[in-house]
Amino acid sequence: MNLLIKNISYLDIDQEKIIDNADILVEENKIKKIGRDLDVKADQVFDGKDKLLTPGFVNAHTHLGMSYFRNYADDLALMDWLENEIWPIEAKLNPEDIYWSSKLSIIENIKSGVTTFCDMYYEMDKVGDAAIEAGIRGVLTRGMTDVDGEGEAKLKEFDDLYKNYQNKANGRIRVVPAPHAIYTCSTEFLKEIAKRSLERYDSLIHIHLSETITEVENSKKEYGMTPIEYVNSLGLLDSQIIAAHCVHITDEEIELVKDKKFFPVYNPSSNLKLASGFTPVDKLLKNNITMAMGTDGDSSNNNQDFVEEMHIGGIVNKAVTMNEKAVPAIEILKMATVNGARALGFENLGLIKEGYLADLTIFDLDSNSFTPRNNLISALVYSANSSDVEAVICDGDFIMKNREIVKLDEEKVRQVVNERWEDIKSR
Amino acid sequence: MNLLIKNISYLDIDQEKIIDNADILVEENKIKKIGRDLDVKADQVFDGKDKLLTPGFVNAHTHLGMSYFRNYADDLALMDWLENEIWPIEAKLNPEDIYWSSKLSIIENIKSGVTTFCDMYYEMDKVGDAAIEAGIRGVLTRGMTDVDGEGEAKLKEFDDLYKNYQNKANGRIRVVPAPHAIYTCSTEFLKEIAKRSLERYDSLIHIHLSETITEVENSKKEYGMTPIEYVNSLGLLDSQIIAAHCVHITDEEIELVKDKKFFPVYNPSSNLKLASGFTPVDKLLKNNITMAMGTDGDSSNNNQDFVEEMHIGGIVNKAVTMNEKAVPAIEILKMATVNGARALGFENLGLIKEGYLADLTIFDLDSNSFTPRNNLISALVYSANSSDVEAVICDGDFIMKNREIVKLDEEKVRQVVNERWEDIKSR
Repeated sequence: MNLLIKNISYLDIDQEKIIDNADILVEENKIKKIGRDLDVKADQVFDGKDKLLTPGFVNAHTHLGMSYFRNYADDLALMDWLENEIWPIEAKLNPEDIYWSSKLSIIENIKSGVTTFCDMYYEMDKVGDAAIEAGIRGVLTRGMTDVDGEGEAKLKEFDDLYKNYQNKANGRIRVVPAPHAIYTCSTEFLKEIAKRSLERYDSLIHIHLSETITEVENSKKEYGMTPIEYVNSLGLLDSQIIAAHCVHITDEEIELVKDKKFFPVYNPSSNLKLASGFTPVDKLLKNNITMAMGTDGDSSNNNQDFVEEMHIGGIVNKAVTMNEKAVPAIEILKMATVNGARALGFENLGLIKEGYLADLTIFDLDSNSFTPRNNLISALVYSANSSDVEAVICDGDFIMKNREIVKLDEEKVRQVVNERWEDIKSR
Repeated sequence: MNLLIKNISYLDIDQEKIIDNADILVEENKIKKIGRDLDVKADQVFDGKDKLLTPGFVNAHTHLGMSYFRNYADDLALMDWLENEIWPIEAKLNPEDIYWSSKLSIIENIKSGVTTFCDMYYEMDKVGDAAIEAGIRGVLTRGMTDVDGEGEAKLKEFDDLYKNYQNKANGRIRVVPAPHAIYTCSTEFLKEIAKRSLERYDSLIHIHLSETITEVENSKKEYGMTPIEYVNSLGLLDSQIIAAHCVHITDEEIELVKDKKFFPVYNPSSNLKLASGFTPVDKLLKNNITMAMGTDGDSSNNNQDFVEEMHIGGIVNKAVTMNEKAVPAIEILKMATVNGARALGFENLGLIKEGYLADLTIFDLDSNSFTPRNNLISALVYSANSSDVEAVICDGDFIMKNREIVKLDEEKVRQVVNERWEDIKSR
């Protein structure tokens, strides 16, 4: 089974430019060949005229199951919002609820060009099932806490998840442990996860880190260290870290993580909306720290529109630094693709390059956002809209075509989510 | 000719809530009656089930003709961008070029729910023609400068524009003078416009004001006053002012304008992208200053997506103030509707209220952004996407239906803009 994309313009991240009139041959789940007028017979041909091909986007931090809470409790402080609004209603969710809300979020992700997500939630086998069904690539990271005294059960559950889902679906699914945050996990629990990450899993950990000033202040008070210093002291940074937020990362912490496998995930919409602050993206990039990008969950974003996320992340740092040249469009696109892939531990993902996984997003250039066609790298970040995404390929397979989700019934998913939400509220 | 919108949910701005199951009767160009199960025979019935009706949005500051420059020169400082990139190429535009780019921008505006624009550009008769054709409401404000020594000619041209277009198309078109900015107009020229505004026109002036630190610093150096103090000293504030940007408005200036008809227009995307800074929206609102909202032009935004503009404006101020409750969603919706209308001098526009002009935007609630349906006021600002806008009514008439622009050929407009841009660059 192969697919020939004919005569398309594509984003070459390494060269930081758009290459026109390229033919791209996809064989099985990989990019087999890139060239001009490739002389191959293909089972399937896609006409690339007036289209723009990018690597599929990597949404490196989200909570797919939270769609129910979209626009449910806004304009509140993070802890108030979590403790008094989100957690009580979240406790009522059952596995099937999460299966359906995850499907809705996955649809939103695909429709904005995302081919890989990193999800932190629970009932992760259900999230895995939804991802497998939709055809998307997913890193399942069980958000674990032990403030409820159930740490042991979580670790056991994670073991099962890892056993049953790691590398499932042609390797599209990966499983990574995720201690939720330093304020929801005990020191012992964090230490245990750090240890198991190295011994039993793949030396990769996902965690919320330095999201709010309160978190930082409490950490200093309780442990005499800032959050990143603290998790380092527990051995977490011996693994590769997918560090969601890092809004309040300090200069000392930047020095500390510089030579480690530490990947901050930038979530601009959520950080702005929850008034967490401005992640120092420009400073982190200048320190050669590889950053990824994420939407966070529907409860704090309040959507999963990755194209909009790139736009917001792309413009806000210019005002923060009062420098129009700060964080240029190409840097945002790197975060959104290859750097996100690296953050999640994928070696051959996030570039349009021979031998790389065929995760690809196709924009329709015959749209208002791309008219006229000037700098297409700027266009992707500053003017494009998710409705310009026409097709999405994941692992060599179309998961969206002609703006239609291929493997899920979008209307039915919305209907079930609406019905379940009515039921959840009445429980 | 009348239209009955049956059984719809609508945004009541005055009550700050959503009213369900309403019938809304539109007669000619006005909202005639609002109620439950209205017993009227209508020529046209629109089924409002699963739809959300809002007042049509008011894009209170834009430059419609600038679509050519979308993604043309990004990541540059304002003055460098204007003087070295935009102005030289802008000088090559002819009236027909502006007619077509304005059409493209108008399409983008309509597709994101805008029913009224306030445009500052030149060849404004062409912009007026495009607006009349599209069916949208428009305030034509000729951006005037006299740094080129052509002040007299501009004033004469404006006189003609006012004579020929004021209240054209059933009153849909209005004409307002617009001295471009204090750094492109001489003191005498500004004084003359201030005088003519009161004597010959409608005591309404549109101007770029306090957009950048450079503008403020130069004003202090040159005139010993900040920009708003300076224009006040010239008599401009005796008219009602549509004050684009006001990013660097000072506390003293806030005191000065408090009791005047002074309406700052917030352009979040442009202010962020050009690194102009953060407009003190929270402070302005706390001082009871009525603010409007705009997209600015495609050259600095880089699109005309008003729904995205509301989202960005809605979240960024929370991080600026480190307060999650700052600038709540309803305040953004007020800026986007009735306050924008007031800023532009319309008395009976921007509310869904009997007797008001029938400028209405219809969102499709059967979309991912609105699933599930929690707080719809939050949804409009935080999760909605312009692709959720299904229909737009202006002056009692559908100008978009089933997501299709009614009175313009969208594909043709894109084609002509692309062709003209190739030609412009070769001139």
